[in-house]
Amino acid sequence: MGKGGKSHQEGEENMAAWLVGLNTLKIQPFKLPPLGPHDVRVRMKAVGICGSDVHFLKTLRLADFVVKEPMVIGHECAGIIEEIGSEVKNLVPGDRVALEPGIGCWRCDLCKEGRYNICPDMKFFATPPVHGSLARQVVHPADLCFKLPDNLSLEEGAMCEPLSVAVHACRRANISPETNVLVMGAGPIGLVTLVAARAFGAPRIVVVDVDDYRLSVANNLGADGVVKVSTNMQDIPQEVERICEMMGAVGVHVTFDCAGFNKTMSTALSATRAGGKVCLVGLGHNEMTVPLTPAAAREVDIIGIFRYKNTWPLCIELLRSGKIDVKPLITHRFGFSQKEVEEAFETSARGGDAIKVMFNL
Amino acid sequence: MGKGGKSHQEGEENMAAWLVGLNTLKIQPFKLPPLGPHDVRVRMKAVGICGSDVHFLKTLRLADFVVKEPMVIGHECAGIIEEIGSEVKNLVPGDRVALEPGIGCWRCDLCKEGRYNICPDMKFFATPPVHGSLARQVVHPADLCFKLPDNLSLEEGAMCEPLSVAVHACRRANISPETNVLVMGAGPIGLVTLVAARAFGAPRIVVVDVDDYRLSVANNLGADGVVKVSTNMQDIPQEVERICEMMGAVGVHVTFDCAGFNKTMSTALSATRAGGKVCLVGLGHNEMTVPLTPAAAREVDIIGIFRYKNTWPLCIELLRSGKIDVKPLITHRFGFSQKEVEEAFETSARGGDAIKVMFNL
Amino acid sequence: MGKGGKSHQEGEENMAAWLVGLNTLKIQPFKLPPLGPHDVRVRMKAVGICGSDVHFLKTLRLADFVVKEPMVIGHECAGIIEEIGSEVKNLVPGDRVALEPGIGCWRCDLCKEGRYNICPDMKFFATPPVHGSLARQVVHPADLCFKLPDNLSLEEGAMCEPLSVAVHACRRANISPETNVLVMGAGPIGLVTLVAARAFGAPRIVVVDVDDYRLSVANNLGADGVVKVSTNMQDIPQEVERICEMMGAVGVHVTFDCAGFNKTMSTALSATRAGGKVCLVGLGHNEMTVPLTPAAAREVDIIGIFRYKNTWPLCIELLRSGKIDVKPLITHRFGFSQKEVEEAFETSARGGDAIKVMFNL
Amino acid sequence: MGKGGKSHQEGEENMAAWLVGLNTLKIQPFKLPPLGPHDVRVRMKAVGICGSDVHFLKTLRLADFVVKEPMVIGHECAGIIEEIGSEVKNLVPGDRVALEPGIGCWRCDLCKEGRYNICPDMKFFATPPVHGSLARQVVHPADLCFKLPDNLSLEEGAMCEPLSVAVHACRRANISPETNVLVMGAGPIGLVTLVAARAFGAPRIVVVDVDDYRLSVANNLGADGVVKVSTNMQDIPQEVERICEMMGAVGVHVTFDCAGFNKTMSTALSATRAGGKVCLVGLGHNEMTVPLTPAAAREVDIIGIFRYKNTWPLCIELLRSGKIDVKPLITHRFGFSQKEVEEAFETSARGGDAIKVMFNL
Repeated sequence: MGKGGKSHQEGEENMAAWLVGLNTLKIQPFKLPPLGPHDVRVRMKAVGICGSDVHFLKTLRLADFVVKEPMVIGHECAGIIEEIGSEVKNLVPGDRVALEPGIGCWRCDLCKEGRYNICPDMKFFATPPVHGSLARQVVHPADLCFKLPDNLSLEEGAMCEPLSVAVHACRRANISPETNVLVMGAGPIGLVTLVAARAFGAPRIVVVDVDDYRLSVANNLGADGVVKVSTNMQDIPQEVERICEMMGAVGVHVTFDCAGFNKTMSTALSATRAGGKVCLVGLGHNEMTVPLTPAAAREVDIIGIFRYKNTWPLCIELLRSGKIDVKPLITHRFGFSQKEVEEAFETSARGGDAIKVMFNL
Repeated sequence: MGKGGKSHQEGEENMAAWLVGLNTLKIQPFKLPPLGPHDVRVRMKAVGICGSDVHFLKTLRLADFVVKEPMVIGHECAGIIEEIGSEVKNLVPGDRVALEPGIGCWRCDLCKEGRYNICPDMKFFATPPVHGSLARQVVHPADLCFKLPDNLSLEEGAMCEPLSVAVHACRRANISPETNVLVMGAGPIGLVTLVAARAFGAPRIVVVDVDDYRLSVANNLGADGVVKVSTNMQDIPQEVERICEMMGAVGVHVTFDCAGFNKTMSTALSATRAGGKVCLVGLGHNEMTVPLTPAAAREVDIIGIFRYKNTWPLCIELLRSGKIDVKPLITHRFGFSQKEVEEAFETSARGGDAIKVMFNL
Repeated sequence: MGKGGKSHQEGEENMAAWLVGLNTLKIQPFKLPPLGPHDVRVRMKAVGICGSDVHFLKTLRLADFVVKEPMVIGHECAGIIEEIGSEVKNLVPGDRVALEPGIGCWRCDLCKEGRYNICPDMKFFATPPVHGSLARQVVHPADLCFKLPDNLSLEEGAMCEPLSVAVHACRRANISPETNVLVMGAGPIGLVTLVAARAFGAPRIVVVDVDDYRLSVANNLGADGVVKVSTNMQDIPQEVERICEMMGAVGVHVTFDCAGFNKTMSTALSATRAGGKVCLVGLGHNEMTVPLTPAAAREVDIIGIFRYKNTWPLCIELLRSGKIDVKPLITHRFGFSQKEVEEAFETSARGGDAIKVMFNL
Repeated sequence: MGKGGKSHQEGEENMAAWLVGLNTLKIQPFKLPPLGPHDVRVRMKAVGICGSDVHFLKTLRLADFVVKEPMVIGHECAGIIEEIGSEVKNLVPGDRVALEPGIGCWRCDLCKEGRYNICPDMKFFATPPVHGSLARQVVHPADLCFKLPDNLSLEEGAMCEPLSVAVHACRRANISPETNVLVMGAGPIGLVTLVAARAFGAPRIVVVDVDDYRLSVANNLGADGVVKVSTNMQDIPQEVERICEMMGAVGVHVTFDCAGFNKTMSTALSATRAGGKVCLVGLGHNEMTVPLTPAAAREVDIIGIFRYKNTWPLCIELLRSGKIDVKPLITHRFGFSQKEVEEAFETSARGGDAIKVMFNL
């Protein structure tokens, strides 16, 4: 039995949002696992909706993962510690924490080499068959719960998850004060990539999208230039030209493709200078038709990005210091009733002016 | 005026193989440029035929390079120093040398960062409008002429060029004693990649091709396993399965695609383990249709390879020490007459049992 | 209760070699901890003596670690699986395994970044207060027990531990077929570094020592040259000259200081070429007086080495394939009686022709 | 003959500050070399005094370099293009430029690998026997002259040289938004390292010095904390404790030793966390007595720093964007008369409140 207030079993049933079928979410009881010596029990306060949550809701699958049993959804989250396991030293009840959603096995070679994000046995919130965190309470390892400083809200804590994707991409692409950056796509991931690249020092960042509203958000978040493009492949040459003009003589060192379509990737490969990198962050089309050979012949490398690792402390520091402000990205807020859960997912799925939809529990 | 025997102008006209039109090579006089203080004049003794030479002959172009004026062909070469410039310290007439064919500008940022192979102003033998080295004599910078030890032949010196492509790929892919390697394609570049990866310590190397003869050569050169494949895209899943069985439980860390087709690249991306790399060495299809997203989601990076840099000293050491033996790759030899030049290129173009076709001048 | 033969408690008392005081080892009962779900119970068959074991015996301390309570000694070991925990999938009773001695916490940032060897909470065999492995049986995590192929002996399995130090050093120094290597000191660690650097492809390796016998062993293990030196600081300049002559024109890219004295480190810093690296592997003098500034001004970096990480699979592969043969390093063997344990440690402490002293249990 | 205004020979004798003997500088005529096709002739407008200039003046030597013949001094400089060589494309007369002082040979392996800063044949302003740039005019390669944007002064252009040392150190130490930095020494190099580390994103920077005034400058330049220390070795433990308290729980990832004394280096090695790096930037004591072994046993690497490479474009961008402001570091200004040259060097040598002393020509 851990340290902290009364156990969750007493007097309160834990409720969670279950994905029970195609397009069907139900708030239902969710029995917590026992609290291990290195675990904590967290009362969830802020949970964001991710594109992958919506994808699971609409299709019951994502890549190779298939929802075969009802599953609690949600993985962008922050809350307050209610109880700690007997061996937990770094947290006490009452601490406000952001949660890193994935638990590596720590026995495979990838975990031991520090690449636990691609551990084949990872247990990750709301990746079937593992339950997620859109719940009143969850039990989680203490070392994956990161204390928030006083000047950060719990919503900002939940934003550490999408921000982590961008931070991991910036790290893998080695963004620094000498890296000119192109961002393809100004959706939620494109926008956090923009602000993360800026925090890593990128001197010049150009953002590309098909949508005026999203480009205006990119502008407000500090893009040095934006380029509106079509969805027509034939426009690529002149669009690349406009991107390169906007970037200036030195050119694009790193492109983040935050959309993942034939057109965005083709544009990325053409616009990036010799010796540069293209990071495929957005996972859109499965198979792509792209000019791979001319890019390879200029030693433009393509870097794959999957989730993140060791990013929470850095995200919290970037938010704490004000180098990054994610608050403008939170556009919609909902409570945790059956009706609001449904509305929130519809809002997120609709896109438009909805960037990040957040639950306040 | 440099140091050395009598100048080439006296008593002898320098002859070279000129690409004068589609499918047309002519041996004609080739006037040498003046010898600069850091240059040497080399009597060519061994020149190999590269796939790119054949491609220029058949199409007068390669990628963005177009042959608009008659051009001396050839760039895999070795010879004997005849004359040295006034400032040359590292060589004397009579030295047997292998020639690195590309001269960086040394003023652009890529050259200064040590990536001179992708210098936009590089002057490279037989890349238009620069003349090549299939000639009786050439003038070249002394620092790009590397002395051969006594136990290496001039033909082995010429083989440093294709070997350099493989060495550069092994370096970029960071091949070491803990890298299991898959080689797609057992043509000349696939085969030098096989022996280079072995020299970099790769513990297990599997080679894939459509051709039994080439696979038998790979076997003789020390492949740990070979897999014969079809040209049918639908066979990829079971071919990947056979490759993975042959590789063993740890899997493929790095794949070198030495062909560059939709099928080879698709196979490469599927067969490589999470966190691994695919190097695109062979430049085949321009646009490719490949499963990029699932590979990126396993953080399989795609590394582009263009030529090489700083590879001659290592190639010479690998050949000198016997870690690599390229002699079995030289399958055909020709003299330097009009008729033999034509025959040699036909032999190389025909493929089949012709791996490396070499001129002895 | 795990799977496997009868539990060790039944019918047999587990015995181990305890360090009970200065210069005093006693074979005494050693109660095993309970077998966790991911643990295995191993019957020890081969245990080597390390310099650090001797140091603990002679001084009861090493660096900041102090032996305050009786402690089982030993950490270079291999044995046979007797019992496996309920969740163990990769091993079955009867498997012959080599043991990696250190268990990271997997909760700190260093573990998560893949640098578990410098985890501040590591539990390491025979580093106080953790018990070692010179015992009839030990319990250990299954993921730190690596199955030996049929062609390797259990003694070779135990040798994976000292070899791991060398492999980790070669990795950190990025040894490749283009790295000329200097090894300062031909003791056990210097000799495994020699063979490991060779396996990583080092084209030229020179070994330095004060002792003719050790240099002859280095020669037999394949050093390209050996240099006998004095212990007199004033001889450094001419000794560096002899080293550089022996190495050849390209010079020393990486020096491994496997002794760790003022003189060896000063020689290392002077002999290494601009842009090279010196790895401090042997931990001798605490404070050193060395020409740090001239080395730094040539961008010679000093790389610290502590133990190893993720090395067992590679060590086993290098031994299996015959790229490394450690059998010549095992010079003395002892059984596991009180008298033999004492004799074995005396033999190891005496040095001379004793390189690796091994227990066969 | 190059393009531009009338040649310098006509009507004007070029004057320069010559180091003609111990403590003796004389303004004397300085004949310019002919203008090569890739050279430019620059009218110097701002030249800063570096500690190494003062060292040469006071001792006629620095490390292995000895002034045997009268030599023009000075190497931190900026000016205005007067004439350009026939092949120069990137500059026109009238352009305001900052000059990178060192010219690599571009023929050695270090130059070709992109490490031209440690080229053994480098020609560097005011490193004997090469003349410096404290002159009315100099001739220099165009690719080492970097155009200043309108919002930067020529003095700021000259400051790119000391800033380059810091930028090169930050690059070699891989400073990023997740690197806590300790700077030992708040002299000119320590201060530019502080502002450069900030520009590379360092979230927390602590500066250490013996001098209150210098620490107050560090504070004004944005240090997160300063620690005043003694010159007494025995104070190291408690000073390390104060540094670590000021840095916070995560600790010091990278220490820049910008002084290079036994005490600063010992403090650096003790204060840096496991797996961190110490960069030796300041070249003080030749031989050092420092606790190397305990640092190596925590895998704290020591990184050597010599000058810089490829830094001018980044320095100019950091100044242009306002990420770095070096103007507060310029504390004294002098004209270019015999008397003022003497006074300027005395001022620089005296230290105290003189951080950077600048000539306006």
